[in-house]
Order: sequence, then C-alpha cells, then structure tokens
Amino acid sequence: MHFITTDLSLARKLDAQDELAGFREAFVIQDQNLIYLDGNSLGRLPRKAISTLQDGIERQWGERLIRAWNEGWIDAPRLLGAKIASLIGASDDEVLVTDATSINLFKLAVAALRRHPERRTLVSDVFNFPSDLYIFQGILDLLGERYRLELIPSRDGLTIDPQDLAQALNEDVALLSLSHVAFKSAFLYDMQAVTALAHQVGALVLWDLSHSAGVVPMDLDGWGVDLAVGCTYKYLNGGPGSPAFLFVKRQLREQLIPPLWGWFAAQSPFDFDLQFTPAPSISRFRVGTLPVLSMLALGPALDLVGEAGVDRLREKSVAQTEYLIYLAQQWLVPLGFSLGSPFQAGQRGSHVSLRHPEGYRICRALIESLPPAPVVIPDFRTPDNIRLGVAPLYTTFVEIHRALARLRVIVAEKLYEGYPHERLAVT
Amino acid sequence: MHFITTDLSLARKLDAQDELAGFREAFVIQDQNLIYLDGNSLGRLPRKAISTLQDGIERQWGERLIRAWNEGWIDAPRLLGAKIASLIGASDDEVLVTDATSINLFKLAVAALRRHPERRTLVSDVFNFPSDLYIFQGILDLLGERYRLELIPSRDGLTIDPQDLAQALNEDVALLSLSHVAFKSAFLYDMQAVTALAHQVGALVLWDLSHSAGVVPMDLDGWGVDLAVGCTYKYLNGGPGSPAFLFVKRQLREQLIPPLWGWFAAQSPFDFDLQFTPAPSISRFRVGTLPVLSMLALGPALDLVGEAGVDRLREKSVAQTEYLIYLAQQWLVPLGFSLGSPFQAGQRGSHVSLRHPEGYRICRALIESLPPAPVVIPDFRTPDNIRLGVAPLYTTFVEIHRALARLRVIVAEKLYEGYPHERLAVT
Repeated sequence: MHFITTDLSLARKLDAQDELAGFREAFVIQDQNLIYLDGNSLGRLPRKAISTLQDGIERQWGERLIRAWNEGWIDAPRLLGAKIASLIGASDDEVLVTDATSINLFKLAVAALRRHPERRTLVSDVFNFPSDLYIFQGILDLLGERYRLELIPSRDGLTIDPQDLAQALNEDVALLSLSHVAFKSAFLYDMQAVTALAHQVGALVLWDLSHSAGVVPMDLDGWGVDLAVGCTYKYLNGGPGSPAFLFVKRQLREQLIPPLWGWFAAQSPFDFDLQFTPAPSISRFRVGTLPVLSMLALGPALDLVGEAGVDRLREKSVAQTEYLIYLAQQWLVPLGFSLGSPFQAGQRGSHVSLRHPEGYRICRALIESLPPAPVVIPDFRTPDNIRLGVAPLYTTFVEIHRALARLRVIVAEKLYEGYPHERLAVT
Repeated sequence: MHFITTDLSLARKLDAQDELAGFREAFVIQDQNLIYLDGNSLGRLPRKAISTLQDGIERQWGERLIRAWNEGWIDAPRLLGAKIASLIGASDDEVLVTDATSINLFKLAVAALRRHPERRTLVSDVFNFPSDLYIFQGILDLLGERYRLELIPSRDGLTIDPQDLAQALNEDVALLSLSHVAFKSAFLYDMQAVTALAHQVGALVLWDLSHSAGVVPMDLDGWGVDLAVGCTYKYLNGGPGSPAFLFVKRQLREQLIPPLWGWFAAQSPFDFDLQFTPAPSISRFRVGTLPVLSMLALGPALDLVGEAGVDRLREKSVAQTEYLIYLAQQWLVPLGFSLGSPFQAGQRGSHVSLRHPEGYRICRALIESLPPAPVVIPDFRTPDNIRLGVAPLYTTFVEIHRALARLRVIVAEKLYEGYPHERLAVT
C-alpha cells in the first residue's frame, strides 16, 4: 500500500472506507481518549459477552446449579472448538477449547515425541515465546537424556531464513514446533511451506497460533498440519485467561497418547471405572473440569470474528500495519526509532514492534499520559521493543495516527524522562 | 447425637438453634422449593460474587484492560492461596490457586516420584476419585515400567481398614496419595495418623482435599503433610470450574521439580529468557495464564468460609449428616435403602450416600418433581448411590427433612417408575 500524506485527513478517509468499521460498535469502548493497541495481549470486551456472562452467573450457576452441566457446560469445549475450527481451516471434530496454551502444548508435544520414539530431536526457534520453550525444556528434563532441543537461529533478529530452517530438519527430528507469528518481531511463517518441509523428513509439526488465530487466514486441513495450540484472549477476545484451544489432525487422533489422563478424556467418565480408557474422539485431549465462567464470553467473541471473516480482517490488518509503519518512517525513524518487525507485509502478523533505547520509559509515558493527551496502551518487550498491536475488529486508522503522533511528541520533547526505569510486574 | 422424633418440628428447632443459620442469606437462593443437596459437587453462588464478577468483567476487563494485570490479577493465585491456607492449617507461602485439580495432581505426583528415584511404588486406594487414578495411570504410562500403582482394597465397601493401609506401605513406596474424603462413600481418613504412617517408611504423602476443604478441619502444617491438591467449586463455592489449589510443604518446595515448566513459574517471566529458571517460591508450581473471571468469585466465597470457621462448619455438618442418617433409618431402610456411608461421624465427610437398586430413577424423580412437591437435587454415583451433600453454610435441617420425606414418598409410591433408565450426560 502507498500512503501519500501523514495528515489526519487520510486516516479519516481510510476509516470511512473501512467496511469492517461497524464491528467497533460491538465492543465496550467507553473512553474515546484511550487508544488501545494491546489487543494482541488481551482483546477488548465484546458487548454481548456482558449479558452472556450475567446469564451464566445468575441463572446458570445461581439457579440451575449442577443441572447447568447438562444444559450446555459439558458440550462447551466441543462447540467452542467448532467455532474456532471454522476460523483456522479445521474440521469441527479436530478442535477443542480446553486448559491453558502451555498445558495443551505439553500434552501435544509429549504425545508427538512418543509417537516417534526412534527420533530424538525437537526443533523450535529463538523467536518462540519463552513459555513454549520452557515447556519443551521441562519435557526434555522429564523424558531424559535421549532427547535434545534445537533452536533455529535468526540472522537479522527479525526473520528466520528458510535455509536455516531446512538445515535444522533431518530424519532425527520427531517434532517441529513454532509460533506462527513471533511474539516480539511479529515474523509470520509460511505455514504451508514449513509444514511441507517438515513432512519431507517425516517430522510432525505443532504450531502455536496464539498470535495469529483470528487475524491471519490459515488452512490447517488443506496444508496437512498435524497439531496446533493457541490462546483465545488475544485476537479472539475471549477475556482474561479464557481457556486455550488445541487442534489434532483427525488421522492422528487415535495414534496419540496425551500424558494427562483426565477424567473428561475418558470414554465414559460417569461409569467411574478405576481403569482409564481414552475417548475415541478429540475429547481424549481434555483433562479435568474447565473454568466455565471464563469460557462463556468466547461464544459471542468468536461469532464476531466469524462474521467479519478472517480474510477481511487480514486485509484490514495489513493496511493498518502498513499505515503504522509509514507514519513511523516519516515521524519516528528520524527520532532514533528502528523497525523491529519485518517490512514485508507477507512476513508480518498484526502487530508492529518499534525499537528505541528508551523504549520502556516511552511506554510508561504513553500509558500514563494526562488529558488532553490520549492514553496510548502498547506493551513492552525487553530490551527495547514497543509492541503496537492492531486488532482490526476495533482498531481505527485515526487511533493509529493519534498514537504515532503522541509517540512523536513524547520522544521529540523527551517527555519520557519524567518516568521511572523500574519495571511494573506485567509490562 | 440423639434424635427422638421424625417430626418436622424438630428440624425447625434445630434450625432455630443453629448459630450459622444467617450465612444462608449470603447466597443466592431464589426458589425455596428447590432443595439443593449437591453443594459437594457445585457450591451455591455467593451474593457478593455477583458484584465482584460484574466489576471484573465491566471495569477490570472492559475499561482497565491489560492494566488490570498489575492491579490485582497477577497476585490472585497467591492471595487466594493464602485465604485457603488459613482454612487447611497451612502457611500463606505454601498454597497457590492454579489450574485444575487433575493438573495439579499430575505436577505434584510426578515431582514426588522423581524425588525418590530409587522407590518404585505409588500407593492409592480403590475409593480414590477415578480422575486421580487416571492421572496416576497416565504418569506410569509416561515414566515407564519402573513404576507400579498399588490400590489399597476396601473390606466393607465403606471404609479402608488401617491394617490394609499399613500393609501397603513399605520402603519401596515413593508416594501415598489418597482422597481425604472418598467421593462415593464419604469415608474420611485420619489424615494425621495416615501421614505419620507413611513417613515411617519414608514415603511422601499427597492428599486430595476436594471433598473436605472448607468443611473438615485439618492442620496440614501441624501434621507434617507434604503435598495436597483440591478443588474450589464444592464446599468452597468458587463457581463452576473455578481453579483448583495446591499445597507444598515449605521445606520441600525447592527440592521438587514440577514437570510443567510454565512461564509464570519462572523466576523473572518478563525478562523473556530463553532458558527456564524456576521461581524460588510456591509460584514455581504455576504454569500459564489463569482464567481470571473464573477466579473472581473465590475471594468473597472463601471469606464466607473463613468467617463461619471450619470447626463450626464441621460441627453443623456432623449434626446434619447424623440427622439425615436418623431419618433414613426411620423412613428409608424399611423401604429397601441401605447406608452407603460410614455410620461413625468421625469416619464420614459432609455427604451421605444412600443406596437403592433403583437409585438412578429415584434421583431423576427427585430432580424432576413438579410443584407442589419440592425439587430435590442430589447426585448419583454408579451403580446405586444417591449422594446427599450437606453444605453447612446454607443447608437447613428443614431441607434435609423435606428431602428425606420426599424420597420416602417417591419410593413408597414407586413414583420413580415413570422415569427413564437412560443416563443424562452428567449425573
């Protein structure tokens, strides 16, 4: 996309032309002076979720009590899984909403390693979210010295070179597990090509879709993906800590033995057999009782993504990150910023990292601004990345313009100097 | 306790004398014709939880958004853990609210087995909840043939004989893991004595407190308990699927390596180190992001238990289960029922199982009664157990009287014959 002016008028025009603009109304947005660019960490609250949650609390829990299990709760992991399936190119019976992303990653990675006991290598990359790498390290510590973890390096700190990826793959690799979109640089893998490459050496592939589900189109079934996990509280707007999802290719399902033998994973839980028999369905990857209230908002939240359509969301997301980068180049690069994300849209997810040596204090200044300046909420990723997330369901071009203009003022006038270096617990 | 009459007047008198009676007002109870005796499966909704949840949804998520992590969410597992600690005789830094019971059991059981690699036996009993046994079976399947699971049998189907327990313990036992209160018969272990017995052979002890926390007094620190897990949605009233808790004795904490290396378990998550270093605190047993909305009700719910006091709750619970058994003996045993729980109060938790060959259809008849008959909600445990749970925070003696009277009518008049044998998904 080509932009010809940094004038606010262009942002207004782009908003006026945006066919998804109406979706912003579906979210609770009370303070128009708050520019929220952290939907990649915690998505906004869908209006409809409020009444859904109220019903869940007061009628389902309060009045129906235990009977509510038979009136919807028991089926929620499958029904919500089916909604997610339609957003990622999977089938209804391949996706389950359950547990946390790390726990699902543990289940699937252990099951995958055990499927190929003669192979000893688990491959990931240096861009993967540390939580994923920690889970892998814990698995290796648990399963013993026969396994090793290899991390593909990055040459430029922004992307992974296909040659380095190819080099890491060989007949000893049991599992390749990567984040589809890297949390720091937003580097976006070519899922189809990488999956095919891994399959050439007989490895299974496990994708973490946390930063791409709902905002990057994908076709898990069409591309032959084996396994995937992802969180639901970023671009899917399920609410703080809403349960994660997992995907298992239908053909693999009954060949995999997850290590957590949960009651809800059993074929007939209410027979109370003393010996576990796994369910023949995707339910074998469930564990225990799920946090019902934290699942309730997901229904209306996922419906909004489905209604907008991931292809259209991607199109708007690309236009918005391109616009953001254009403004950054015009205004911020001259002030000492550099781009911490790939320049090519095809290699980038829906957030943009801008790097600056004073990144942390600049973030604090953005967040703690006083009126009439807007409050801008990005997040910070050490050592110097200001992450600006575009959530095309509700982010506007005018917000991007205002946020970047504010960044420019804060740095040009050194307003960040009034803020502390000490980190908050969550940054 | 001695009861001299089955007249309703006695139930009324007992309610009038009940010093905890006022706590019933703290719960949402709209339908006085609904007699809820399943607080041992899903506790009732505390009134105060409604406003707490509304604030969590509309202000914290809706307005504060990501900032809410620094404004309370991040500390909730520890703060709620401290509230639970005060109910189970533990210290603030030994308890954490996190994940589901099965997942916590997996973490602690694996860590315990790995602590004593020269020992090969994990001991439990045939009364343990199948979900716990399934987790153990999965662990054995994962860790290989060096381990074996031994289940202590029951001679009478109601209790575990101390001799059988002693027989199962020897120098090869790495871990003894039991439910403090058995889910079916409500058999209550002498936690202090059993823990001491296990320690005599050098085994660690892991208690599942799901059916006892909040209603049976215990002193984990005083009794030297090593490890415990428990759920929070039964007698603790945290709401459907509210996160579970875990307890790790302070002296053991840094000797144990949980198998799930979670991001929130790391010493400094926001440093985003690629290599995991476990937190030196109880937080090392955390994993990923927790379901925030499903944790919010726990605060006010736990405060109610603390205010009433577990000793007083136990006293009332014993009086109520004794009264229930008295009425059952007078009215139901002559109709073909038998007692499926220990007769001695000291061996019994807060629910009573009544057994009848037509148990399932009797349950259906209780639940699906039409006015003016009361709707009575117990639950059913195969093959023939009707579980009647007493939740002393809100169950009244009159409710127990009405429920047993209704049971008597249903069986005497064979009203259950109009109900199907086919099971509902959740029973």
